[in-house]
Amino acid sequence: MRTAYHERLDGLVEQLGQMTRRVASAMSRANNALLDADIEMAEKVITSDHRIDELREALDAEAISILALESPVAGELRLVVAVLRISATLERMGDLAVHIAKIARLRYPESAIPAELRGTLLEMGQIAELVVQKAGSALVSRDGSLFEQIEKDDDRMDSLHRKLFTLLLDDSWSHGVEGAIDVTLISRYYERFADHAVSVARRVSNDF
Amino acid sequence: MRTAYHERLDGLVEQLGQMTRRVASAMSRANNALLDADIEMAEKVITSDHRIDELREALDAEAISILALESPVAGELRLVVAVLRISATLERMGDLAVHIAKIARLRYPESAIPAELRGTLLEMGQIAELVVQKAGSALVSRDGSLFEQIEKDDDRMDSLHRKLFTLLLDDSWSHGVEGAIDVTLISRYYERFADHAVSVARRVSNDF
Repeated sequence: MRTAYHERLDGLVEQLGQMTRRVASAMSRANNALLDADIEMAEKVITSDHRIDELREALDAEAISILALESPVAGELRLVVAVLRISATLERMGDLAVHIAKIARLRYPESAIPAELRGTLLEMGQIAELVVQKAGSALVSRDGSLFEQIEKDDDRMDSLHRKLFTLLLDDSWSHGVEGAIDVTLISRYYERFADHAVSVARRVSNDF
Repeated sequence: MRTAYHERLDGLVEQLGQMTRRVASAMSRANNALLDADIEMAEKVITSDHRIDELREALDAEAISILALESPVAGELRLVVAVLRISATLERMGDLAVHIAKIARLRYPESAIPAELRGTLLEMGQIAELVVQKAGSALVSRDGSLFEQIEKDDDRMDSLHRKLFTLLLDDSWSHGVEGAIDVTLISRYYERFADHAVSVARRVSNDF
């Protein structure tokens, strides 16, 4: 039988799952905003971010209350500490989706993405959506084995990140410095986003 | 009289102070590596980063041991949770110093910094050193009042970050896309570094 204490622990992981779904939704919208120069989509990402932050606050308060009232030890203590860390990481992932949406908004009605980089950035966006979904699955099913898969996705993201720099530095690049700055930052945001997903899955693998 | 328990709590804050000093040293060296195209200095930052990571691991293990064995509540629990968060932030600040050092190394024996941006990047580097020192003082003296000062430093950093983009986009920019990518990333690293220092000071102000 699950005790009230174990139900609280399960609730923490449940809330993390919810937070992950919101981050996944933010990233999916940010990708659409960027690829389609869709200002409404960009605004949605930006104005919804506070909901991710609020979830984090609620989650952290619950985790700290569990520490105070239940004095978890051993594996359960590791779980609660991991939850605190993962919530911080997920909040940061939401911020990165916002950063991408803000670049889309800044360039609207133009697209921030030159046509010849569209395919690469599309794939980076898809990997970002994939790794956050997998991180969510790892969390709610407490399945550390997804960690290696996410690491492979992250390797692919890193390789696309490097590829973009090569394209920016090619003689054929015709979008000047402004275009290069946008792409540099967008690419960096995607790359960090995937790093964070790896760190979430690593924590699940080590501490759940 | 201080109990053994309180001594352990003091020790946590002491270790955070030590970690902050190492991060400050890494940032100071990264600045020198960048401004003077000093490859040995860059290597020092890169090869010393593991010492910051090790400190973090030791610190986190001690914090978790305190949670398990002492079951802190109220203000002391908040302190221990804040320590876990601050250690993660400091580790990240160390990583950002490494990123800056790596750009310096990548461009060696050239300088990654065009002469006309030297003054701006020098000031950003100085602010980075300042905010991490102030964050360290806030920590060890448990003085939340430094938070507002660090916020002001961060405002200045943000304004220099924006100024750099204006300079990159000016018609007189003569360092092409590669130079623009380097400066975009360096500037972003400094800007994030200062954000992290603000977050350290905010935690001290709220939770210490």
